[in-house]
Amino acid sequence: MQPEATQAEVAHMVERIQKLGLKPHVIVGAERTVIAAVGDERRTHKENLESGPGVSEVLPILAPYKMASRELRKEPTVIRAGSLVVGGATVGVIAGPCSVESEEQILQTARAVKAAGATALRGGAFKPRTSPYSFQGLKEQGLELLAAARQATGLAVVTEVVATEDVPLVAKYADVLQIGARNMQNYRLLEAVGATRNAVLLKRGPSATIEELLLAAEYILNAGNPNVMLCERGIRTFESHTRFTLPLATVVYLHAKTHLPVVVDPSHGTGHSYLVPQMAVASVAAGADGLILEVHPDPENALSDGYQSLDLEQFAATMAQCRKVAAALGKEM
Amino acid sequence: MQPEATQAEVAHMVERIQKLGLKPHVIVGAERTVIAAVGDERRTHKENLESGPGVSEVLPILAPYKMASRELRKEPTVIRAGSLVVGGATVGVIAGPCSVESEEQILQTARAVKAAGATALRGGAFKPRTSPYSFQGLKEQGLELLAAARQATGLAVVTEVVATEDVPLVAKYADVLQIGARNMQNYRLLEAVGATRNAVLLKRGPSATIEELLLAAEYILNAGNPNVMLCERGIRTFESHTRFTLPLATVVYLHAKTHLPVVVDPSHGTGHSYLVPQMAVASVAAGADGLILEVHPDPENALSDGYQSLDLEQFAATMAQCRKVAAALGKEM
Amino acid sequence: MQPEATQAEVAHMVERIQKLGLKPHVIVGAERTVIAAVGDERRTHKENLESGPGVSEVLPILAPYKMASRELRKEPTVIRAGSLVVGGATVGVIAGPCSVESEEQILQTARAVKAAGATALRGGAFKPRTSPYSFQGLKEQGLELLAAARQATGLAVVTEVVATEDVPLVAKYADVLQIGARNMQNYRLLEAVGATRNAVLLKRGPSATIEELLLAAEYILNAGNPNVMLCERGIRTFESHTRFTLPLATVVYLHAKTHLPVVVDPSHGTGHSYLVPQMAVASVAAGADGLILEVHPDPENALSDGYQSLDLEQFAATMAQCRKVAAALGKEM
Amino acid sequence: MQPEATQAEVAHMVERIQKLGLKPHVIVGAERTVIAAVGDERRTHKENLESGPGVSEVLPILAPYKMASRELRKEPTVIRAGSLVVGGATVGVIAGPCSVESEEQILQTARAVKAAGATALRGGAFKPRTSPYSFQGLKEQGLELLAAARQATGLAVVTEVVATEDVPLVAKYADVLQIGARNMQNYRLLEAVGATRNAVLLKRGPSATIEELLLAAEYILNAGNPNVMLCERGIRTFESHTRFTLPLATVVYLHAKTHLPVVVDPSHGTGHSYLVPQMAVASVAAGADGLILEVHPDPENALSDGYQSLDLEQFAATMAQCRKVAAALGKEM
Repeated sequence: MQPEATQAEVAHMVERIQKLGLKPHVIVGAERTVIAAVGDERRTHKENLESGPGVSEVLPILAPYKMASRELRKEPTVIRAGSLVVGGATVGVIAGPCSVESEEQILQTARAVKAAGATALRGGAFKPRTSPYSFQGLKEQGLELLAAARQATGLAVVTEVVATEDVPLVAKYADVLQIGARNMQNYRLLEAVGATRNAVLLKRGPSATIEELLLAAEYILNAGNPNVMLCERGIRTFESHTRFTLPLATVVYLHAKTHLPVVVDPSHGTGHSYLVPQMAVASVAAGADGLILEVHPDPENALSDGYQSLDLEQFAATMAQCRKVAAALGKEM
Repeated sequence: MQPEATQAEVAHMVERIQKLGLKPHVIVGAERTVIAAVGDERRTHKENLESGPGVSEVLPILAPYKMASRELRKEPTVIRAGSLVVGGATVGVIAGPCSVESEEQILQTARAVKAAGATALRGGAFKPRTSPYSFQGLKEQGLELLAAARQATGLAVVTEVVATEDVPLVAKYADVLQIGARNMQNYRLLEAVGATRNAVLLKRGPSATIEELLLAAEYILNAGNPNVMLCERGIRTFESHTRFTLPLATVVYLHAKTHLPVVVDPSHGTGHSYLVPQMAVASVAAGADGLILEVHPDPENALSDGYQSLDLEQFAATMAQCRKVAAALGKEM
Repeated sequence: MQPEATQAEVAHMVERIQKLGLKPHVIVGAERTVIAAVGDERRTHKENLESGPGVSEVLPILAPYKMASRELRKEPTVIRAGSLVVGGATVGVIAGPCSVESEEQILQTARAVKAAGATALRGGAFKPRTSPYSFQGLKEQGLELLAAARQATGLAVVTEVVATEDVPLVAKYADVLQIGARNMQNYRLLEAVGATRNAVLLKRGPSATIEELLLAAEYILNAGNPNVMLCERGIRTFESHTRFTLPLATVVYLHAKTHLPVVVDPSHGTGHSYLVPQMAVASVAAGADGLILEVHPDPENALSDGYQSLDLEQFAATMAQCRKVAAALGKEM
Repeated sequence: MQPEATQAEVAHMVERIQKLGLKPHVIVGAERTVIAAVGDERRTHKENLESGPGVSEVLPILAPYKMASRELRKEPTVIRAGSLVVGGATVGVIAGPCSVESEEQILQTARAVKAAGATALRGGAFKPRTSPYSFQGLKEQGLELLAAARQATGLAVVTEVVATEDVPLVAKYADVLQIGARNMQNYRLLEAVGATRNAVLLKRGPSATIEELLLAAEYILNAGNPNVMLCERGIRTFESHTRFTLPLATVVYLHAKTHLPVVVDPSHGTGHSYLVPQMAVASVAAGADGLILEVHPDPENALSDGYQSLDLEQFAATMAQCRKVAAALGKEM
């Protein structure tokens, strides 16, 4: 309560807390009175109390997510989707081009990344692009090419779905449905992928808090789909020498708060291919359960994101370094 | 180019620029060589060039949006949607509760805000909520209540649409379709509202650049709908004493770059009702073409956002202050 | 406490809280135990408790500043320094060039800004510059020119001091000592200006929280100088179309938390002269107690900051608009 | 130039560019005219041109720092200060308490961190504290204790200097002078340490760009001291689950731009001791030339920063993990 709050205001808030099904405890201090409200905060919201008379601030103590919480489930969740295993002692590696462009491009990439140690293939068929004038993806044809690449290599397919109406189609072809950063809070879409049996890769929005990310995961879990991988792909800050700022402490923090596995995307997280290899290695060292990397046989002529894509050789070299670090830390990769 | 770029690399980039349909000009400096590429940059993207050998940086000069650009259309666009006029010398005022909760609540609010000078009614029927456990709105019943309030008061209705599949339904009831901040880059949804004849209120995402906001507007314009109002509702920064940081310079900057009108939302932009009145006044002083304000007859018992809602008296007082400033600056309100 | 905290850990923390001179209250909830610690938090720090065993989080309730607090002193502080009055119903206007460059430049500017309604003259003699290769100011000669301009016009002089060793010299010439944003947490310098009798203009650092700003003011107040004006000059965010993001809600928030007056700097806060006039007007509308504006007779040839300086005519026009808004809101300017 | 710039305005700018000693090249495009200005940009500033008539934007191409630039010096600089080697194939480790508190505390820590592999001892004697009511350090007595610890262990001493007037005193005791994040742009202090023969550890300010950091280093280099280590210690972003956001891509980026070595501070960079070990390992994996870590024999009772300090065992365990990763990547530690 504010220092100048009256007795009547304190009594009013005590009553409101009781109405919300919480148990109030009044603590009188030298300068101000504090009311502790005990109960399940997830049923209410701190904002409902903040507008009360004489209230100075409401400080929540319980996390608002439940099914994603480590408190609910102590062991880390291991997710398996075809050839991809993420979580536990295994580091999964999802690699491939930003966009599927042609049969040759995707097959060549799939074979090369598999040979270098990738355990899943990424590739965009439906592309959300900042400008309406940019290449928007091959759509269903892209999905077919991904399925062909899976058949040729055995690699699980990870691809983005951008709209509720596309979920059945994409779910038919993909092993893992990716929710892009721009759609992290597209709740209808989260519910739709929550209703499938596919694994989901949920990317953190560039200005999402960890709590918002976990609540987005909660939408999917709550819809019945337990196979959610979280993905740190960089946040928007004042820095301009990188496209986004990649905060690897997210990995360690998420491991403390949730049982869900954490994948890191150093390609979007830095936005420049020359920064990717060492940040991939650092991600493994930070404890990432998986990596997702943009790889293209000819980045200079890629239809999208070429500037942040590794070529096939760079990817193989990066994998070699990552594997050394994983081995040093007792992990499989 | 990088200082150590070779002649061959310069020649290679000159060729690539030509292939992209641009005209290269090579400028040799003391420390490095610069290549100017002249032509329509909107057809290509700086990233396509950044991955070239010996390239240091690519600096775009033309804005990537076109239909939204002030260069295309010098006069400010005035948007009319029922009782609401936004743009030119008139400041439109959209007021109402975060969520439609009941017939009594929305009718009482509509009458009161109209009496105080509002020119449109806001109210959420489909609510995108951070937590799956929060109140999600009355949905179609909420839309019916909004239509009833329009009938009773003559106020135009502004309400959010959160999914492509809801667009026809919401468009039937609403005068203005609101695209929320979380959906600013939900391109499928932008295209869907672009295909309607309703006016659109497009909110800036909390970490969207102005360029991204204008490109989102471009999606709507490009789909055939010219009636787009932009809305500044606060950005995410390190500040924690406000829910978001409300940057009013956006209004002045947007007026220089686009002909589209600019609305400000001081309720979300501050997140605390006691900060709203003066920030509403400041928004008018900064040149806003419209305001959107959360108003509730009983904020303390609101089902959502009560902490940032004005009550009916506070709204009337805020309007009185805003009108004084508008009059001082020669605007109608 | 964490949900899995043991009884022994709770008992340990109760003891620690007692040792810190605070009074513990243990509240047992369904999922976790909370310990409220009542007493003067300013003597300790939340961090001292955060490292305790079983501790989940420490949430401070009292503000850590005291002398700057509105709780200590209800009435707003009005600061007078020569011709400058800041606080209460009067809006002070500090105008002048970024750097003092020559006698003619400063005298011409001083006369013009006075004629247009400024109540103090700004001008940099000691310039902190990002690059060691930039113009660093005229130093003592600049101070002499400022004093001459004061003599000619009667305007109080506001100028920056960048080092402890310069305080006596600058204090001899200036009415108001400015602490620049880069030095907001140069505590030795704060103590040095706190030991003078001059008024102080304390600029917010570009990433300082409001709490850090008020604690910086507290250093000055605590050293014995009560005449501190706070200055919002923009924060660093992801926005790149302005040099900084100018958050005017700071003015309203500070008025709720502190009795010290608040000045706004739209020149640095936007970084582009074409954005300054409307943001100056908006600052007045938001309740600013003062404005500080960069004005130069020939911005194009200024030795520093020309791109964000108004010329003499633009300043006069800006003042006219500001005065209309101030009058509409019942303030003097 | 702006699309509507006149011929006269173009001619005017061409003339201004010439006057600044640069060579103009006019490139006429379909929509607008671009003027390239060739020459040493470090002598001028883009802002001097931005205020010209008809100018739309000024895009600098050369970096404004020179002595710090990798273009000037290709080989990485290796810095030696007593027992500490930073740069090249060796990872230096600076460890010790936030504040020197007592002889026993500093000696016990020095012995333990040396045994675990640290190559230098850190400890604050002059402490810049956010609040004037916090512990401000033991000052000269603290320096004496640090010197005693050096004598006992052979470890080089790294300690912060906060004011110009303290430089001679601190330089007498310290091997490495630390410039704290709050003082990164305290240019007088940079010049003062630039005039000593001590090595300098320059911490990045929490909202400083990399260019500003390198220009701050340039102040020290330009004053005659070549022994500058840069330190990434976290930036201020919207994230609140960590005290700062630690962007490890800084290490890789700096290695591309400058020959100066880069140290990482995971203690301040995360602000929570449980996040430190894995972020230390990740820093080594990212290519850091050194680590600086807060270590305290009894973090719970530390006078400052206990919540982010490792205890002696945690430090030894962290070193063991770091060493494995360093070995895997072919570095000495």
